[in-house]
Amino acid sequence: MHACLVRRVIQRTYCQGLTASSLPGRNDHARDMRQRGQSRPHGVVQGISRYHMSSINNSANTDRKPKIARGPYSDVTDADINFFESLIPGRVLTNPSDVDPYNEDWLKTCKGSSKVVLRPKTTEEVSAILSHCNERKLAVQPQGGNTGLVGGGVPVFDEVIVSTQLMNKVISVDDVSGAVVCQSGCVLETLDNHVAEYDLVVPLDLGAKGSCQIGGNISTNAGGIRLLRYGSLHGSVLGLEAVLANGKVVDCLSSLRKDNTGYDVKQLFIGSEGTLGFITAASILCPQRPKAVNVALLGCESFNSLVSVLKTVKSEVGEILSAFEMMDHATMEVVTGNLNLTCPISNNPFYALIETSGSNSSHDQEKLNAVLEKLMDKGLMTDGTLATDMTKIRAIWQLRERGAEALMVDGYTYKYDFSLKLSDFYKLVEAVRERIGTKATRVVGYGHLGDGNLHLNITSSEFKKEILDLIEPFVYDWVSQHGGSVSAEHGLGLWKRNYIYHTKSRAAVDIMRLMKQVLDPNGILNPYKVIPAE
Amino acid sequence: MHACLVRRVIQRTYCQGLTASSLPGRNDHARDMRQRGQSRPHGVVQGISRYHMSSINNSANTDRKPKIARGPYSDVTDADINFFESLIPGRVLTNPSDVDPYNEDWLKTCKGSSKVVLRPKTTEEVSAILSHCNERKLAVQPQGGNTGLVGGGVPVFDEVIVSTQLMNKVISVDDVSGAVVCQSGCVLETLDNHVAEYDLVVPLDLGAKGSCQIGGNISTNAGGIRLLRYGSLHGSVLGLEAVLANGKVVDCLSSLRKDNTGYDVKQLFIGSEGTLGFITAASILCPQRPKAVNVALLGCESFNSLVSVLKTVKSEVGEILSAFEMMDHATMEVVTGNLNLTCPISNNPFYALIETSGSNSSHDQEKLNAVLEKLMDKGLMTDGTLATDMTKIRAIWQLRERGAEALMVDGYTYKYDFSLKLSDFYKLVEAVRERIGTKATRVVGYGHLGDGNLHLNITSSEFKKEILDLIEPFVYDWVSQHGGSVSAEHGLGLWKRNYIYHTKSRAAVDIMRLMKQVLDPNGILNPYKVIPAE
Repeated sequence: MHACLVRRVIQRTYCQGLTASSLPGRNDHARDMRQRGQSRPHGVVQGISRYHMSSINNSANTDRKPKIARGPYSDVTDADINFFESLIPGRVLTNPSDVDPYNEDWLKTCKGSSKVVLRPKTTEEVSAILSHCNERKLAVQPQGGNTGLVGGGVPVFDEVIVSTQLMNKVISVDDVSGAVVCQSGCVLETLDNHVAEYDLVVPLDLGAKGSCQIGGNISTNAGGIRLLRYGSLHGSVLGLEAVLANGKVVDCLSSLRKDNTGYDVKQLFIGSEGTLGFITAASILCPQRPKAVNVALLGCESFNSLVSVLKTVKSEVGEILSAFEMMDHATMEVVTGNLNLTCPISNNPFYALIETSGSNSSHDQEKLNAVLEKLMDKGLMTDGTLATDMTKIRAIWQLRERGAEALMVDGYTYKYDFSLKLSDFYKLVEAVRERIGTKATRVVGYGHLGDGNLHLNITSSEFKKEILDLIEPFVYDWVSQHGGSVSAEHGLGLWKRNYIYHTKSRAAVDIMRLMKQVLDPNGILNPYKVIPAE
Repeated sequence: MHACLVRRVIQRTYCQGLTASSLPGRNDHARDMRQRGQSRPHGVVQGISRYHMSSINNSANTDRKPKIARGPYSDVTDADINFFESLIPGRVLTNPSDVDPYNEDWLKTCKGSSKVVLRPKTTEEVSAILSHCNERKLAVQPQGGNTGLVGGGVPVFDEVIVSTQLMNKVISVDDVSGAVVCQSGCVLETLDNHVAEYDLVVPLDLGAKGSCQIGGNISTNAGGIRLLRYGSLHGSVLGLEAVLANGKVVDCLSSLRKDNTGYDVKQLFIGSEGTLGFITAASILCPQRPKAVNVALLGCESFNSLVSVLKTVKSEVGEILSAFEMMDHATMEVVTGNLNLTCPISNNPFYALIETSGSNSSHDQEKLNAVLEKLMDKGLMTDGTLATDMTKIRAIWQLRERGAEALMVDGYTYKYDFSLKLSDFYKLVEAVRERIGTKATRVVGYGHLGDGNLHLNITSSEFKKEILDLIEPFVYDWVSQHGGSVSAEHGLGLWKRNYIYHTKSRAAVDIMRLMKQVLDPNGILNPYKVIPAE
C-alpha cells in the first residue's frame, strides 16, 4: 500500500477546542466507583487476579496466601474513639455499614477489619490524629480514593483508616507559572476541571480519574497516559506538605519551579505509598491546556515495524506527541468480538494509537499527515486513519481503553503490568503464549508503548490454578532477567511487595528499610505494605 | 506601534537544521575552564562575591568568615597513600602542583589544603576508596568538573579529593527510548555531542557545559536554560548508581521510564551535593533533538507587560517554547555600554528573549509571528525582532549570556540567584535599587523568567563592605518573606548552607539531618557542606 492510499483513508476533518479531558471512554468504567459500591466490576485491574481475593480473609486452598501476622500494635479502645470524636466531631465513622466500604479495595482483592474511619479536614487534624496513634501505637491506614490496584490503600487487619475524602480544597492557582496548590483529597478529575478554567491541565490522566485523589496519585507515583508528554510526578510535583508518623508537619509546599536549598525532601513521599508520611497538600506544575487534539490509528505487520513507527513519530512530531499506545491482534479481536466495537482499518498483527496535543490544529494535522505518508512510503504501516472530530476520536480510544472490559467477557483474567525495554517488550507476550498453548482462551498484549509499559493479560473461562502456575513466577522471573520492572505504574502495596527483589537491588531495599525506620520507628503508617517481609 | 510594524522588524529568514547545542555564546566563557587554569575569569558567578575569597584562608577583616573547625577526621598517612597507590596505580596525585588545581574552586572563592587526589576509573575503585576512607575516618571531597558556584566541590581542609575525571565512558544509548547510560565523569557537552549522533539531546544546558560533568550536574540538581522545556533532573534522570560512604554500591541504574517498585531511592542522590553518596553512573532520558530553533527579542514597557507576554507565549506556542529569558534596561545598558554589543530593537524598560525548538521550522515561525502580532495588538510589546539564522540568533543570545562578563567591567559584582513568584520577581530589584541609591554603579536584574529564576547583580568600582551590608541580609530576608528560594539552581555548598532556613522549614532540615546520619554516620562525605552548622 502506498502513500495515496493513506491519504484516502485519512479523514481530514477539523476539530478545534477539543481537549484531552473531553475524550470519553477512558474514565467510564472507573468513574465514581465509590457511588457504585457493591456493583463495581471485578477484575478491571493490572497485576492481581481474583485468585488473591480470598487469600487473606478465607483460608482458601492456596499456597500463595500471604503469611502475615498482625503487628505489635495496640487495639483501638473506646477512649481512642472518644479522643477522635472530640478532635473531629461528627467525622468519626464506627458504624460497620459505614466503615465497610473503606475496609475493602474496589477490586475486592482484599478486605481488612478496621472499626473506625477518621475524616479530617485540615493538616492540623491529621497531625493530631497521627500524634495520638503514634503515642498509642495504633496502626494507621491512609486512604485516598481507594482506587489502588495492589491492595495498598485498605487495611489488612484493624488499622485506623484516615481518609482524605474531606480534604478537597483547591488552595491557589497561578495561571502564569501554572503552579496549583491543593489539599490531597481533591479528586483528579474535579481538580482538572477546575484548572481548565485557567487554561491549565493537570499533568496526569488515568482511568480512575473520576474517583482517585491527587494525594493518592502522588503517594503511588501514578503514571497514566500523559506521562509520555509531561513526565513523572517526581518532576511535576513542585511541593508537598506531609505529616510524619509522629504528627510532625513537614512543610515543603513550595510553588517555585527551582529550589536547590538542600535535599529535595518531598521526593521521599512521592511513590512511598503512605508508608513514610501522610500527604496533606500538594503543589503541582500544570502545563498549558492543549487547544488541539488529533488521534491516528495505524496498522503494522510486525512488532519491529511498530517500534520503528514510534521512533519516527517521536522524531517528526515529538513536541506534540501526547500518547503512543499499542495493541496486538488479539486485543483487537477481543474488543471487536466481545464488545462489538468496530476497527476502522484492516486487520493487522499490531496497531498503534497515536495522539497529538498542541496549540495549532492545522499544523498538527499537517505534521501527522506528513509522518503517516513517510511511514507508508517506508513500508512501516499498512493502513491508517486520522481522527480529528470527537466522535471518531472517541471510537478509536475505546478500542484501546475498553480492552480490560472486553477481556472480562471471556470469564477470568490474569493481569500483569510490566516495564520492559522495547527490544524485549513483545517477546514476553510471545513467550507466555507459547508456554500456555491452548490452555488459555487468549493471551493479549497492549499498553503504553511510548513508556515501555506492557499490560499482559491472559484469559480463561474460569480461574484455573494450572494456568496461574504456568504464568507465575515465570513472568516475574522473565521480567527480572530482562531488566524490567514488575510494577511499572501500580506500586507494590500488599500484593507485590515480596516481588520487589525481582526489580530492585538489595542495597536499594536496605535504604528503603533505613528510611522507614528513621521516619516511622513504630511502623504505624500503612503496615504490611511496600517493604518486603523480612 | 501596531502589527504591521512588527512585521517590518521581523526578519523572515529560514534556518533548518540548527540545534540548540550549535548556539554559540552560551558556553564560551566557561568552556574548558580546567585548561585555562590560572587565567580563568573571576566573578562570573551567581550568589558569591569576591568578598568571600579570603574568608577561609586568610584572616581577612570580616565578621562573615565561616567559623568552621576541622571535623574529627583522621589525617592522611603514608600508609593511606600506599593503599590508594596499590588500588589505582598511577592515578594518585600527591605532588602539590598537581593537587593544587583540585583544591581551589574555579572562582577562587575558597581553597582547601588536601594533599591527595584520587582518580578512579570504575565504580569498584570508588567503592574500595570510600570503604577505606570510612574505616579510617578520612574525610572525602567528591569532585566533578569543579564548576560549582557555592564552594561545594572543593575541600575546606585536607579532605581526600576523589575526582570523577577518568570516569567518562558512555555505556549505552537507546535511540528509541532515549535512555542514555554513562559514567558520572562524562563532560556535559561531550555527552550531548555524543547523543546528537542519535538525534537525541541531553535535557540540560548550562554555561559550564564544556567543563561540568553529568555526575556533578545531577549531584547539584543543575537547572539551566532547558529546564523550562524538559523539567528538572528529578524527572529526567531514570536511574543512578551511587556508592555510599561505607563503600556499598547502590545500583538503581534503571533505564525504564516507569518503575514503581518501592521508594525511588535514586532521588536521594539528586541535589544532595555528594553528601549522601558518590554518584558513579547515571541513566538519563534524552528527548528527540529539535530540528528547528527560532529566537525572538521583544521590548516591553513594564514588568507586568513582560509577564503577560510570558503567559501569552506559553499559551500560544507552549509546546515548542525552549527558553524565556528576561533582561531589564540596566542589563541592556551594561552589555551594550561595556561590551559594545548592539541591541537590534529600540530602547525599552524590559526585554524578553524567547527561543522555540520544534520539528518544523516554518510551523514554528508561523506560530511565533502570529503570537508577536497578537502581543503588538494588545500593546504588550513595543518592538521586536525574530531571528532564524545562526548569526542573528548568536547576536541576540549574547545580549543575555554576556551579562556577567559585562558587569565585571564595572569593577566588582555582588551576585545573587533567587527563585521568586512572578508577582514579586522584579520588586526585589526595585527594592534593592531604592535601598542602595547612588552608592552602587548599577543594580541589574536578568534571568530565567519562565522558571521564576532571578539573577540579581549589583556593581561598584571595587568591593565595598558598606554596599554589601546594605544588600545582605536584606535580600535573603526579603526573599524569605516573599516565599522565594535563596538558591534557585546553584545549591548550598559551603557558602549558602547557613541560609537554608530562609527557604526550608525546620522540619525539612531535620529530615535532611536524619538522612545524612543514616547514610553517612561518620560524616565523611563532603563535610561542612549543605547541612547547616548546628
